[in-house]
Amino acid sequence: MDMTELARRIMAQDRRALARAITLVESSRADHRAQTTALIEILRETSDSQALRVGLSGTPGVGKSTFIESFGLMLLREGLRVAVLAVDPSSARSGGSILGDKTRMEHLSREPNAFIRPSPAQSHLGGVARRTREAVALCEAAGFDVVLIETVGVGQSETVVAEMSDLFVLLLAPAGGDELQGVKRGIMEMADLILVNKADGDLKAAAQRTCADYAGALRLLRKRPQDPEGFPKAMTVSALQVEGLETAWSEMRALTRWRRETGHFASRRAAQAEYWFGQEVRQGLLAQLDQPEVRALMQDMGREVAQGRVTPTAAALEILEKLRANR
Amino acid sequence: MDMTELARRIMAQDRRALARAITLVESSRADHRAQTTALIEILRETSDSQALRVGLSGTPGVGKSTFIESFGLMLLREGLRVAVLAVDPSSARSGGSILGDKTRMEHLSREPNAFIRPSPAQSHLGGVARRTREAVALCEAAGFDVVLIETVGVGQSETVVAEMSDLFVLLLAPAGGDELQGVKRGIMEMADLILVNKADGDLKAAAQRTCADYAGALRLLRKRPQDPEGFPKAMTVSALQVEGLETAWSEMRALTRWRRETGHFASRRAAQAEYWFGQEVRQGLLAQLDQPEVRALMQDMGREVAQGRVTPTAAALEILEKLRANR
Ligand SMILES: Nc1nc2c(ncn2[C@@H]2O[C@H](COP(=O)(O)OP(=O)(O)OP(=O)(O)O)[C@@H](O)[C@H]2O)c(=O)[nH]1
Ligand SMILES: Nc1nc2c(ncn2[C@@H]2O[C@H](COP(=O)(O)OP(=O)(O)OP(=O)(O)O)[C@@H](O)[C@H]2O)c(=O)[nH]1
Ligand SMILES: [Mg+2]
Ligand SMILES: [Mg+2]
Repeated sequence: MDMTELARRIMAQDRRALARAITLVESSRADHRAQTTALIEILRETSDSQALRVGLSGTPGVGKSTFIESFGLMLLREGLRVAVLAVDPSSARSGGSILGDKTRMEHLSREPNAFIRPSPAQSHLGGVARRTREAVALCEAAGFDVVLIETVGVGQSETVVAEMSDLFVLLLAPAGGDELQGVKRGIMEMADLILVNKADGDLKAAAQRTCADYAGALRLLRKRPQDPEGFPKAMTVSALQVEGLETAWSEMRALTRWRRETGHFASRRAAQAEYWFGQEVRQGLLAQLDQPEVRALMQDMGREVAQGRVTPTAAALEILEKLRANR
Repeated sequence: MDMTELARRIMAQDRRALARAITLVESSRADHRAQTTALIEILRETSDSQALRVGLSGTPGVGKSTFIESFGLMLLREGLRVAVLAVDPSSARSGGSILGDKTRMEHLSREPNAFIRPSPAQSHLGGVARRTREAVALCEAAGFDVVLIETVGVGQSETVVAEMSDLFVLLLAPAGGDELQGVKRGIMEMADLILVNKADGDLKAAAQRTCADYAGALRLLRKRPQDPEGFPKAMTVSALQVEGLETAWSEMRALTRWRRETGHFASRRAAQAEYWFGQEVRQGLLAQLDQPEVRALMQDMGREVAQGRVTPTAAALEILEKLRANR
């Protein structure tokens, strides 16, 4: 496949070309990897379209899919094109969950100006991260205005998503008591916007209470230079009843505008690119350990170490020596 | 220096030889590293003395030094030889803190059957971990019966200490309210014994309440196969008044005896050795990035990436290619 031609078609907003390119990105074959790298490089040089990348995280059942359906349809009505990508921390997403998504994003998935792609199946979060980052770049070159990157929260995957987003949105459910929902401080510190979902019917009062709790907690966080007055912010929404979504979107736009004007938008992207560069170098070095022969060697040696026949240090030196000689 | 001779003197309980060997272990010079590896290997082959390795962790001011002084002196009175090592998560321990330790372990530090060594100063926790592990091996070969490994708790260093200990003891202070002291669940799950210190005078009642709270929290943890009935356990002690220390020690011995009889003691050590082997291989691979030329290259390339002149992936491939060619 000619990458220059594929790049041209992606930039001409050809959805089939985009889907094909993402499949290429998700492949682990060496020739596909090389093609992908070339493709992304061509797009970096020739395309200047830029999407707003919105990271979205929340525990299972909080309403992420429902939110994306409602929020995505609202963006479409504003004339925007929307892509949805996912970072799945588990190696293989259960079929049921994908089906659930199809049902919950039923209308969005049928829209010509929307593009939905589930998480690439992969064992390494590092691998998923690179593929998703590359898929974001493809969607961006394909002229999508907003790229939503979804993840179910389990700690590590939120960081991955936040490091590739311009804005990070945390979706929460109304809490029972008055205690915070065990959201890790680190995750809260990444959020630009906390949306307490399901603020409808019986749950409305609880959602408002939870929102107030989080607003209080956010005020206690150290002020970040990349935030204008009032951010990070907590709000209530109802994804199901489509309430509060316009307000949430106008807050996101206000924050984005401020960050663009102050240069924080560009410097965040620059810092993210550097971060991923470092991560890829480290992962590339460690990837040597995934080769079947090396795995087998590590296992044999590990057994020797466990039985006390060699010290961990001496065994490690032997492995490192072999890896060095193998080039 | 002849490593066979040094090993012989260590096994003959020559303290100066031990101190000298630990200095060697702490050096980062390549020739010293090679000597160290040889020394540890000789000791692994020839020495069969085994110490009980006790990890000890707690927030600043909880009374770790005071505890070690009192507990160490008690062990000495039982005719045991005691070594004290430390893992310091910060790169350079403040001089004040070391002085504080000298004062707080005043009597212990003067005893001929006790050996106290502060944490090696180093920027990498990984480096400190290896040096401390090797120092533990030296103390063990030098016939110490108990090796206490202390760390001030900041999350990562507790894991490092727990992974080189046969028993892990968490020291806590009496809490004000009835809430748990923000001890991370992960840290609690590593503990074999929780000692609520300062159970004396005005603080006694609070210490007992805190102890009951933690005993309750421990009961909620999933039962671990390596624990007999009743473990992990929470108790009160007073390091200052030397109260509860005999009981704590007899619990430690009971747990150790049970684990030895059931084979858990040996299998924990085997698993730890394998863990450190894997860690050292990974650290060894990543250590390439610490070389000054590579650092400089990474920095230059990072700047290009940040400015969008090359993608993170392409830049990472270039670095990895260079590292490969450099061998
Ligand atoms: N009342 C109410 N229910 C909602 C709302 N949003 C989602 N739900 C319901 O919550 C349940 C879970 O919604 P999903 O959108 O599938 O949640 P999710 O976060 O995508 O879940 P996972 O994909 O499993 O992580 C469904 O029954 C939704 O109908 C809302 O705003 N209000
Ligand atoms: N009342 C009371 N005070 C204690 C006890 N143990 C320690 N202290 C006091 O607590 C303070 C701190 O004790 P240290 O032993 O230095 O605590 P540490 O955990 O070693 O502190 P760092 O080395 O800074 O991490 C000192 O003033 C001790 O006298 C105790 O059992 N009871
Ligand atoms: Mg979903
Ligand atoms: Mg101390």
